[in-house]
Amino acid sequence: MILELAVYEKVEDQVKIAQKDLEQDGFSKNPFFHAIIAEVPEEHQTKDGHTKIGYSLYFYTYSSWKGRAVYMEDLYVMPEFRGKGIGKALMSKVAQLGLAAGCTQLNFAVLDWNRPSLDFYLSQGCWDVTSDLGYHCMRCEGEALHTLAQRDL
Amino acid sequence: MILELAVYEKVEDQVKIAQKDLEQDGFSKNPFFHAIIAEVPEEHQTKDGHTKIGYSLYFYTYSSWKGRAVYMEDLYVMPEFRGKGIGKALMSKVAQLGLAAGCTQLNFAVLDWNRPSLDFYLSQGCWDVTSDLGYHCMRCEGEALHTLAQRDL
Repeated sequence: MILELAVYEKVEDQVKIAQKDLEQDGFSKNPFFHAIIAEVPEEHQTKDGHTKIGYSLYFYTYSSWKGRAVYMEDLYVMPEFRGKGIGKALMSKVAQLGLAAGCTQLNFAVLDWNRPSLDFYLSQGCWDVTSDLGYHCMRCEGEALHTLAQRDL
Repeated sequence: MILELAVYEKVEDQVKIAQKDLEQDGFSKNPFFHAIIAEVPEEHQTKDGHTKIGYSLYFYTYSSWKGRAVYMEDLYVMPEFRGKGIGKALMSKVAQLGLAAGCTQLNFAVLDWNRPSLDFYLSQGCWDVTSDLGYHCMRCEGEALHTLAQRDL
């Protein structure tokens, strides 16, 4: 499903992760992430025989202004199960767990060409921090990250 | 210094955190965040008597495509100590610690009107995920977050 989401977002060549990394990082004593899986009874399985038909991957972050926050990294529902409220239910569960953990914010990112998702999130009362405050997501990786790390403190 | 950063970013009214929350969330067994403090010898203290003159607040996140990542939430250096490479050194240390923890990405956000910072980061080999891929940061908080959490799964 991670790969299906990347195909939808047109970045499938960016998926570089191995199953063993996901198992190690998500299911250890201090996991790097948490996940919720949406599952249907066998009689509703997909034409390929899947009963796990959606997921959300999330983790806890922090704002020095507002305190604890939850970040929803992925939200995915297989095409034939969309429009049934499953995405909304997954997101709601992340919000519930976040509030229970003392979080005051649920954060996530959406691609600006993905208008259906953007409209869905706005309809749920979310606001666009990039449009409204001018936040740009920045990234350092690969050789640039190694070069940056080599400076002495 | 958290408040000074918020003043610089013109959002000081957004700072709602108490010192006890920061102590509890950052210095417990499974902390929500980590921090690095830049300190100078007493003979170089600020006119207000400070020797702690900069900080970075960071935590670990996760990409289902790339695995472990480190997120630099705050990077701040007091005005009279800017231009001396202290910000770069703090950022470098976050990159070092991220790489040591198995991260392949350093992520952070910058305000689009903050051109000096944006140019600094770009000069360090970082790239702008919002401009290049169209990522928008989204947020759900307050009443909207509680409403979202009330839906049944």
